[in-house]
Amino acid sequence: SGHSTNRIFAPYYVYKGKAALSVQPVLPTFAKSQYGSLKMDRRGSVMLSFCPAIGERKYDREKRQVFALSATEVGSLISLGPKDSSEFFHDPSMKSSNAGQVRKSLSIKPQADGNGYLLSLSVTNNILKTNEKFIVPVTTAEFAVIKSACNFALPHIMGWDYLTKLSGDTGSNQLTMLPGDRGGN
Amino acid sequence: SGHSTNRIFAPYYVYKGKAALSVQPVLPTFAKSQYGSLKMDRRGSVMLSFCPAIGERKYDREKRQVFALSATEVGSLISLGPKDSSEFFHDPSMKSSNAGQVRKSLSIKPQADGNGYLLSLSVTNNILKTNEKFIVPVTTAEFAVIKSACNFALPHIMGWDYLTKLSGDTGSNQLTMLPGDRGGN
Amino acid sequence: SGHSTNRIFAPYYVYKGKAALSVQPVLPTFAKSQYGSLKMDRRGSVMLSFCPAIGERKYDREKRQVFALSATEVGSLISLGPKDSSEFFHDPSMKSSNAGQVRKSLSIKPQADGNGYLLSLSVTNNILKTNEKFIVPVTTAEFAVIKSACNFALPHIMGWDYLTKLSGDTGSNQLTMLPGDRGGN
Amino acid sequence: SGHSTNRIFAPYYVYKGKAALSVQPVLPTFAKSQYGSLKMDRRGSVMLSFCPAIGERKYDREKRQVFALSATEVGSLISLGPKDSSEFFHDPSMKSSNAGQVRKSLSIKPQADGNGYLLSLSVTNNILKTNEKFIVPVTTAEFAVIKSACNFALPHIMGWDYLTKLSGDTGSNQLTMLPGDRGGN
Repeated sequence: SGHSTNRIFAPYYVYKGKAALSVQPVLPTFAKSQYGSLKMDRRGSVMLSFCPAIGERKYDREKRQVFALSATEVGSLISLGPKDSSEFFHDPSMKSSNAGQVRKSLSIKPQADGNGYLLSLSVTNNILKTNEKFIVPVTTAEFAVIKSACNFALPHIMGWDYLTKLSGDTGSNQLTMLPGDRGGN
Repeated sequence: SGHSTNRIFAPYYVYKGKAALSVQPVLPTFAKSQYGSLKMDRRGSVMLSFCPAIGERKYDREKRQVFALSATEVGSLISLGPKDSSEFFHDPSMKSSNAGQVRKSLSIKPQADGNGYLLSLSVTNNILKTNEKFIVPVTTAEFAVIKSACNFALPHIMGWDYLTKLSGDTGSNQLTMLPGDRGGN
Repeated sequence: SGHSTNRIFAPYYVYKGKAALSVQPVLPTFAKSQYGSLKMDRRGSVMLSFCPAIGERKYDREKRQVFALSATEVGSLISLGPKDSSEFFHDPSMKSSNAGQVRKSLSIKPQADGNGYLLSLSVTNNILKTNEKFIVPVTTAEFAVIKSACNFALPHIMGWDYLTKLSGDTGSNQLTMLPGDRGGN
Repeated sequence: SGHSTNRIFAPYYVYKGKAALSVQPVLPTFAKSQYGSLKMDRRGSVMLSFCPAIGERKYDREKRQVFALSATEVGSLISLGPKDSSEFFHDPSMKSSNAGQVRKSLSIKPQADGNGYLLSLSVTNNILKTNEKFIVPVTTAEFAVIKSACNFALPHIMGWDYLTKLSGDTGSNQLTMLPGDRGGN
């Protein structure tokens, strides 16, 4: 049963004429330290996937591009007012020898008519000499779903959801701070 | 005990003069794939039920009509401003030979005096030659309950609540993305 | 261990010069039906308790009066704008032979200077010929805590928190609707 | 396994030029009363830690200072409008013989250009004759993360998260109020 539930797929899909967008949170992973405590190992994110349309209501999953929103980028998304824009830049090869060769940018802009937003992902690959762009118009209702779901997901991708697990008992399995963190107030 | 808790009824009721409205979330179901992972099988919803009044504080449950709000329709509902309206159309026989024969529409309109909303469900059945309409006035406080409860329910009907279950351990039961989804960022 | 955690006291306290206010949610109870399903038996609430001051930072718990906010009253509280007022009336003897003999009213009014609210509970007892009144000024920050905590508590007092328990599996322990509720959409 | 998960570290970090800020909730602890019920023993908080920079992207953890926000201070933080300021004062030696010797103040001010806030911690120690000040500029997106995460953490540091644990069953492990608390309504 532990193994039977270890992979769950429940993205939120927005299918539009030229591309489809899917949104799904990715939980952080924790590593056990030498003292038995758990420390966040890999940060969580909200993963956006864009697939190009290849026919009526058909999308090419092989050609999809992804953009993993960090906690702070999720904070930017959920605090967007109806007239606000936001743009994020990622380098998937950062800190490797290919740094700077691939650039991804995600842009969120309000629609001209005030109904929802345009989400665009642009991927420039200097090695493959390619430049891909995906544009998905998102209605106000769809964006409200994304905002509300991201607001729900945020503490989980930050790893704060241990709060919902360690508590309610006599304190034996309480969160413990690093030495010194509790000294003052 | 596993079986004893598998049916729970806790709708939120709004009883008014001509009809009663009940609101209750329906969780999605998941199916196990050949690789042991879980994929959403049937989407969740927020189920609205309308029953006509047949006397003082008596309602005819046999004549009720239901309308299952999708995640995106819930997004529309929770983002409604005090002066906004919304209307949704469903065809319960969609994709069957009876497609188009039954039409349901749910309308949410602010009250003229600014205090709350009018929720109306209209069901037109061309086969039975019937046309039913339910109108339930909902106060600002009642609508605040519906909004807040729908906001709470949204990630659950989307199937994102595995976030509250798979985490806090060393990563062995982490969510796993489809191959390739984690490649870039 | 099952028994050891069945009583938890964690009210939110606001101590002021003339009275103290405590806020604590009360969960609903469920009863098992003949078919094995669970139906809400007694509704949950957010319990407000007022104690009069009997000295500096001393309050008389014996003389406290309580007011149990229903889900809809909580909806009213969490949707209060900075200039809005609200008032609720309860009859604790409703439907008994003493109906109308005791009247409780809770009033929430914005402070004249715009900083927070005045919460007042008035209890008129025609049998004992008593009339008690408690007034607790609540700052903007304290009211923000009450709002946020009530928003968190709302789905739990409504009994919707089974959503966080029944899911993530292959659907065998899914919520089941009453016959007919799932027929249409 | 009970022991393996009892220490989790997942702070939210904001690294800036002169100092780094980390934000992490601390759960309350409960003590068992003579009647077997649990009563909150030590309140929870949201712990802010400030570390001075000692080089490019290097921070001196040994010289950090902490400030533990209470539930009401968290309420103040999450209700801050874009132009609002807030300031909190703590005396870590309160009620001891050193009372008044160390003063901490945390100030949250909107940036002049409207983009985010300045968080400043000032620690004046009359015994050591020291005066330390940390200033961390926080962007709108970072502050949105802190607000959303604090809003999530609030019921947990208040000890209200037993709501997510005691429910959904036939009521045998329901929250029980102190005698008298349920008498009226």
